[in-house]
Amino acid sequence: MKSKVTIVKIGGNVINDKKLLDRFLDEFAKLEQPKVLVHGGGRLASELSKKLKINTLMDEGRRITSSETLEVVTMVYAGLVNKNIVSQLQKKKCNALGLSGADANCILAVKRPVSPIDFGWVGDVQSINDSVVNSFLENGITPIFCAITHDGEGQLLNTNADTVASEVAIALSKTHKVELIYCFEKKGVLSDIKNEESVINEIDSTTYLRLKQEQLVHEGMIPKIENCFNALRSAVSKVKIGDLYAIREESLGTKFIL
Amino acid sequence: MKSKVTIVKIGGNVINDKKLLDRFLDEFAKLEQPKVLVHGGGRLASELSKKLKINTLMDEGRRITSSETLEVVTMVYAGLVNKNIVSQLQKKKCNALGLSGADANCILAVKRPVSPIDFGWVGDVQSINDSVVNSFLENGITPIFCAITHDGEGQLLNTNADTVASEVAIALSKTHKVELIYCFEKKGVLSDIKNEESVINEIDSTTYLRLKQEQLVHEGMIPKIENCFNALRSAVSKVKIGDLYAIREESLGTKFIL
Repeated sequence: MKSKVTIVKIGGNVINDKKLLDRFLDEFAKLEQPKVLVHGGGRLASELSKKLKINTLMDEGRRITSSETLEVVTMVYAGLVNKNIVSQLQKKKCNALGLSGADANCILAVKRPVSPIDFGWVGDVQSINDSVVNSFLENGITPIFCAITHDGEGQLLNTNADTVASEVAIALSKTHKVELIYCFEKKGVLSDIKNEESVINEIDSTTYLRLKQEQLVHEGMIPKIENCFNALRSAVSKVKIGDLYAIREESLGTKFIL
Repeated sequence: MKSKVTIVKIGGNVINDKKLLDRFLDEFAKLEQPKVLVHGGGRLASELSKKLKINTLMDEGRRITSSETLEVVTMVYAGLVNKNIVSQLQKKKCNALGLSGADANCILAVKRPVSPIDFGWVGDVQSINDSVVNSFLENGITPIFCAITHDGEGQLLNTNADTVASEVAIALSKTHKVELIYCFEKKGVLSDIKNEESVINEIDSTTYLRLKQEQLVHEGMIPKIENCFNALRSAVSKVKIGDLYAIREESLGTKFIL
């Protein structure tokens, strides 16, 4: 029987809130099975860009990455955010190892084509080096991925953290029973955006189509949910979206089923 | 017989010069035996501090590390510089893994006492986790250390890169025949600071005392040389200072003997 691995992705709003991040890392550290964390950096990168007078250009919520912006996200995601998370987890007795995709060649990506939109130094995941990730897990090491990858030719690339999480989950599903949890500040996918308690417990593909047609899911949630279904279709055992308590509590959050 | 490991430390002036860094990484990648790289970040951290209007306070060439400065050095050393080096080495087919001391708990440090001088968030190396470094080396992974460490209690600490290099060299000497090379922009320790060709081939402790008494070694070179002798006294097999060609060419650079 395949052994269990949990992949947790934390969103920008968790990282921006020091107390929330600490409570999140507590829950994550307490997970007993082998685990992987994936994080973005969110607002901190925009804040640093602003201080450095670098324009942050966005297209439909996605950051356009100039050379200067790539330097900023490399500093914030791979440096500041990643090393702070790693040192906090070490304090909590979780043997964390911070990684970009370039480290030990963990994640290879390709620069996104410049048409129809030139996103600059943005990469799409090409392959996950699951054997090296597995060897870390076997040695009791918890990989902490920031969403910076590389193309194998010396170029770092800014990559969507949700996609990094689902691709890592898919790759590890070859050898493990993988659970993928997208963790953010809300209790799950809400049927009423103004009501924090209106968590939809389960979404299957039919429900999702209906929610989308009736515009009941928030626009920013759509690519997240697409990632969830993609992971399920690619052999990931269990996928859900929820807050920090959903990490260890089976029944919490929004669960996806095909 | 113990197998060979080479520890190379690169200085700030190598990192500041893109072409020089590339040539340096070429030489480093070509080293056939297991190897470890240690780097600082030098001028880039001061430049970023300046842009962010953070004062860089120095005491005898050593950076005083306020909370804001710690954020800057974590971004620059562990993020920008480390990940760029790692991605360049991956291109050169060297399976590099970027590390701070917090990652996989590689280097534990203690905050330096505030008296006689309060250096702020500066750490002195307490212990090197040689078993985890060895396991990376055994798996064909090349550790790339930036000089950020942690105290095990969630606090990152700014640490002297020369000391990190010598402490790693000393720790690995338990299991390996270790060569330690301090690599910078000059050909070695010069007897005449104005003559780039005046390399002293070999310095023993007697010669060193004489050079120091006659003030023939540059002030900034003294702690470097002390590190070299300390490493030799602590079972490191070979220690030298030189330029990038000294990495692979046995006869180049300044060699230290007890």
